[in-house]
Order: sequence, then C-alpha cells, then structure tokens
Amino acid sequence: MQFTINRSAFIKALNDVSRAISSRTTIPILTNIKLVLNDEELVLTGSNADISIETTVPQSDTSAQLIITTPGGITLPATFFINIVKRLPNDAMTLNIEGLRATITSGASSFTINGQDVQNYPQLPEMDDVQSLSVSAAQLVDIISQTKISASTQESRPILTGIHLQLTGNSVKAVTTDSHRLSQRIVQLTGTDANNVDANVIIPAKSFNELQALLEGQDRVEIKFSTNQAVFDLGHTTFYSRLLEGNYPETDRLIPTESTTQITIEASSLLGAIDRASLLSHESRNNVVQLSLKAGRAVLTGTSQEVGQVTEELNANSIEGEDLEISFNPDYVRDALRIFNGKRVDVKFTSNLRPFTLTPEGETDNKQLQLITPVRTF
Amino acid sequence: MQFTINRSAFIKALNDVSRAISSRTTIPILTNIKLVLNDEELVLTGSNADISIETTVPQSDTSAQLIITTPGGITLPATFFINIVKRLPNDAMTLNIEGLRATITSGASSFTINGQDVQNYPQLPEMDDVQSLSVSAAQLVDIISQTKISASTQESRPILTGIHLQLTGNSVKAVTTDSHRLSQRIVQLTGTDANNVDANVIIPAKSFNELQALLEGQDRVEIKFSTNQAVFDLGHTTFYSRLLEGNYPETDRLIPTESTTQITIEASSLLGAIDRASLLSHESRNNVVQLSLKAGRAVLTGTSQEVGQVTEELNANSIEGEDLEISFNPDYVRDALRIFNGKRVDVKFTSNLRPFTLTPEGETDNKQLQLITPVRTF
Repeated sequence: MQFTINRSAFIKALNDVSRAISSRTTIPILTNIKLVLNDEELVLTGSNADISIETTVPQSDTSAQLIITTPGGITLPATFFINIVKRLPNDAMTLNIEGLRATITSGASSFTINGQDVQNYPQLPEMDDVQSLSVSAAQLVDIISQTKISASTQESRPILTGIHLQLTGNSVKAVTTDSHRLSQRIVQLTGTDANNVDANVIIPAKSFNELQALLEGQDRVEIKFSTNQAVFDLGHTTFYSRLLEGNYPETDRLIPTESTTQITIEASSLLGAIDRASLLSHESRNNVVQLSLKAGRAVLTGTSQEVGQVTEELNANSIEGEDLEISFNPDYVRDALRIFNGKRVDVKFTSNLRPFTLTPEGETDNKQLQLITPVRTF
Repeated sequence: MQFTINRSAFIKALNDVSRAISSRTTIPILTNIKLVLNDEELVLTGSNADISIETTVPQSDTSAQLIITTPGGITLPATFFINIVKRLPNDAMTLNIEGLRATITSGASSFTINGQDVQNYPQLPEMDDVQSLSVSAAQLVDIISQTKISASTQESRPILTGIHLQLTGNSVKAVTTDSHRLSQRIVQLTGTDANNVDANVIIPAKSFNELQALLEGQDRVEIKFSTNQAVFDLGHTTFYSRLLEGNYPETDRLIPTESTTQITIEASSLLGAIDRASLLSHESRNNVVQLSLKAGRAVLTGTSQEVGQVTEELNANSIEGEDLEISFNPDYVRDALRIFNGKRVDVKFTSNLRPFTLTPEGETDNKQLQLITPVRTF
C-alpha cells in the first residue's frame, strides 16, 4: 500500500474520522485509525463501538492531490499518526506500508511506525430494513440543540441517555428527559418531498455531540434507520450511531395543559439573574434557588449558609395569576434559557410541587418546550 | 465603609490584584482580597506571601467614577467576590460594609457576604536600605523571557528557582540554571541616566510570571531593592516579590570559551525537526534524541522501542568542524529555540559529553546565550 496526498486535505479527513476515536476503549484496535486504499479512493474509518465515522478521499478530489501507487490497507495508532501528519514539514506526504510497518515521509522527515492488520478491525454494521429521509442540516442541528440538554448522563436508566425521535411523514418530534427535566422539539421538515417514513427510534445523545461538529457547513443530510443503527450520510463522510433498545417512557402526560401563574421575561435578563443566584446556590449543599411571585413582583433568592445571600428583583415584562413560592435547581433553568437566548419566554407554573415550563412568548403548541421539576424545600 | 464605582474599572483592578492570590495557601486570610478606602482613593491588596500586588484607584481617575461615601476597610473572599462583581447587571455598583457584612448592590441585584477584619491581614513588607533604578518595560520583559526557562522548578535547591540579577550602573546580567541547562542575558539599560546601583539579587522566577502580565502596555518601571524584597512600581500598581537568600553559584566558568563543531540553522527549521523527533522520544522512557554531524550532513533521530523511529535531515545553513554524535533532551532545545524564533542560531559543540550553546548567528559576546548539557547514552 502506498499513496501520496496533500497534507491539509488529509488532516481534515483525519480530524473528521478521529471524532469517533476514543483512547478509553476496551477494544484496543479501536484506538487505531483504519486506512483502506483501492484503485480510486482512500477510505478512513474511526469507531468507538457506539459511533463510527467513515470518510472517503476520492482521486477525483483535486484539492487532496491523492496519488495512488499501490492499493492495500492498514490500521495505525490514531493519536500518534495524526500528530505526526500535523507536524510534517512539507505540503505533501507519502505513506508506504510494508507488512505492518508504515513509513511516513515528507521533505527531509521520515517516520517509521508499527500498525496492525486491517483484518482485525471490526466491520461496520450492515444495514437491513432501511427507511431513509432527507433533512436540512440546519433543522437537524435545531432539533439536537433544543433537546440534548435534558438527556440523562447517568447510565442507571440507559434509555434516558437518548434522544427519542418520532418521525411520521415530514413531522419530527424529539423528546429527552432525565426525569428531573424534559425538552421537546417538534418540527415539520422543509425542502423535501412528502415521505412515508414512520420511525420511532432512540439515538444516544452523546452521538450527536460528534455529529453536530460534522454538520457545520453542510446543506442537507440523508438519514437512514435500520433495526439497530442510524446512519447520517454527509456526502464523503458517513456517520453511524447505534440505537438504544427499549421503550421510551410516555412523556406527553408529563406536560401540563394549564397554568395558574405566568411570567413573561427576556431570556437574557432571567439568565443573568439565575447566573448570579447560582453563585450562592453552588456554594450550598443542595444547589437550589427560590423564586417568589407576589403582588406583581418576582424576586429570586440564593442562599449559602457559609457564604451569604443574593436577592434579585426580576425585570419581568408581565407577571400574571396566583402568588407562588417555588424552589428549583438553577442549572436546569440556565440550560433551558440558553436555548431561548435573544427571545422572550413564558414561564408557566401550576403549583410549587408541579413541573413548570419555559416556551417562547405566546407559543402554546409545545413545539419548543423546556419543562423543569421544582425541588421540594419544606 | 461605602463606595460606588464603575464596574469595568473595578474589575480591571481586581484582576490585577488577584494575580497574587492563590487558593492554595497555608494562611487562610490570604485567600481574601483587602480593600481599604480613605478620603481620596481605594487601595486593593492581594498576596500569596511570596508576592504581593497593591493597586490604587484614585477618586481623580474619571473612568473609575469612584464615589467615596464612608472610608474604612475589609477583606473579602477573593474568587467569590470577583465572580459576583463580574456578573452584576449594571455599569455601576455599590459596596457597603457594616461590621464584617458586605452588601454589594447593582441594579435590582443585591448580595450579602461575610468578610474578615482588615486588621488580621498581614502588613506589606517595609522597605529598608533601598536602591532604585528605572527600566523600560520592554527590556525587563526581554530579560525575563530569555532566562526564565532555565530556572529550576524543583524545591530541592531553592536558590536555583530564581533569576540571578547582577546590576552595575546601567548594566544588567541575568542568569538562570537548573543544573541541566543555563540561560544568560546581558543588557545595557536604555532611556535612563547613569545610575549608581550595585545590586546582586535572586528573584523567584515564578514571581515574574505574574509580573510579566502586569507589564503589558506599560512604558517604564521603577525597581527598588531592599535587603529581602524587590518592588516594581508600575504607577497605580505596585508589585512586591521576596528575594531568595543565599549565594548563587558561579556560572561564568560553565560557559565554554571555544568549540570544535558548529552548525548554523534557522531556529524555526531546527524547532520543527525537534518537535517531530520528540513525538517519538516522548514515548520512550528517557526522552532523548540523537544528533549526528558527519561528512557535512546533520541528521536528527528519535526512537521509541514501542512505537517506532523518526529521522530528520537538518536543513542547516552551514556545518563546520569535527564529526560528532550527541544525545540530548529535545524539550530543553525546543525551549531555547522558541526564544530565538525568527532568527538564525549558531549551535556550538566541543564534545558529546560537554555542554553545547545556542546563540544568535555571529554573536560571540554571550549576551544572549542558551546552554544545554547533553545526555550520556553509552
């Protein structure tokens, strides 16, 4: 196996694929990057068993200046190989494999490192019973960024670490909940024909962290679902994620249908007050702040017995309904408000023991919803 | 004690002073910041026992908009207080102290935190037998940055953690050595009258990390030396560093007076080769690279038994003198080359057991010298 390639184009491809590679894996060969060269293209693969990324550099890509001398395959230690490629002195570099020995040359630099047989690298999953649809990258990013905050990071209930996607025709409903809070985003897909997709899948939220980076600068994405995989086709790069197995809890019944108290406020204004109040709550054992809605005034309080106290009078646009005293984790509200930043939000309460919701001002269709369970403090 | 101040100007002053404050201190009150308000100015002090920084915000500073209501003093938990000030909503803020309770208000925000009595805060050192001189900030930065790399970070020989400064009239000689390498910088002070300073002091190199940041944007600095302190006067901010006690080793005799082999090379070119070679040496137990100078060729080699090997043919401008094989720690050479970046350097060797030197091309006066001891590998 031997090829010469433009180093910048190669680094771009290596960086994309390396997003799937983790040094903390129980399968040693997955710390390697897989390189397969055929007569027409170089294919790079990285994987951490949960996600896999494959990217293709075709000979026809003029910026890559790929010159294929001898086809073949190898796997090389990813971090180390990428560090070498990044530091080479010239614009072009040559990789030559003899047996399991790789020689990397560029200008007056020559590295020799040991690889492992490409046969030992796990195969990417086969796709069966495939359903596919086309989505704008911007809409996909919107769905992910409005829901991933409420996915659980605890493995005690694995199903809650995922984003639950329900697709019917061109409608997508995404829900996450860690049982303390819930995020919901409903969108109608744009720029695509009516399609017959009818899918109900749970994708690990972690997978989307890496996918989001690959989506930058993309226009549209082809998504395919099989029994246990979701595949995102971004042209020369393909992103595979396993699906979570099991039934996602019924979440519609958790969303309140009415409220007794409502405040409307600029998200940025409430965010500033929450940030300040959490300076104190983060110093206390239970990380809770109090909101008091009384006689048309909204006052936020954070207390730490050791350090002190903060009081914030909120600059709300309107405060309506019954008086209320409620306690909550400020970090949850902060995460929710960041999503709505630049907008005005309605915060709706029913009682100090029931979940409250944040939605864009005046929107009642729950298409962009953040729900937070209060903390009982008495 | 009560004052109102422009928050941006206050944050700048707090940031300057907080450079001296460490959360890892054995004297609890030093995690606090000291604030003293008199009829004309606010004085902030931070200290970690090694260094102290004092900065003054005068009422006459129009950008600070300092309004003094009641003079007084307090010490407040530094990190926490600064975080509060940074997050307050309005341009102006008021600090009011009653007893040891501080109330910080800005717009609709109000914080109450507990301080400690200003009487419990250590006094800044008194200055005795003072000698003083004026230095351009740029020259001071030049002296520090060309020597601090070779100061020891080990406390086994505390004296070697310092920068040894010898001042005679307008001549300054700065030397550091950790016994594996040595840096020397000699300058003639510019823009100042001939002065009668005759000082021989050792300042902890760590102190200069914080001083360097304060020097940014400064024109000139007034330096004062007493028996056990160096004080750098930067106008509204004063920086105190303790001096190290003891006799600094005689270093002139360590510097070779002749060489048998010399290469001249662009610092950036050698730096690139060293960076690549150290990719391999960092994977091996002893972190050593080999340089072979033979028949007019210079070849750098790095080897890790586990990972592989790298060979670099150096693109030298000239290679003169006897053949040589020498081994060294690439990190030491990398640190030295970064100082000379953008210049061509002469690297001069006598034997593979004797120290070699890096100096700017053609300079033989040792005014900018980096010396490195090789590693014996046979």
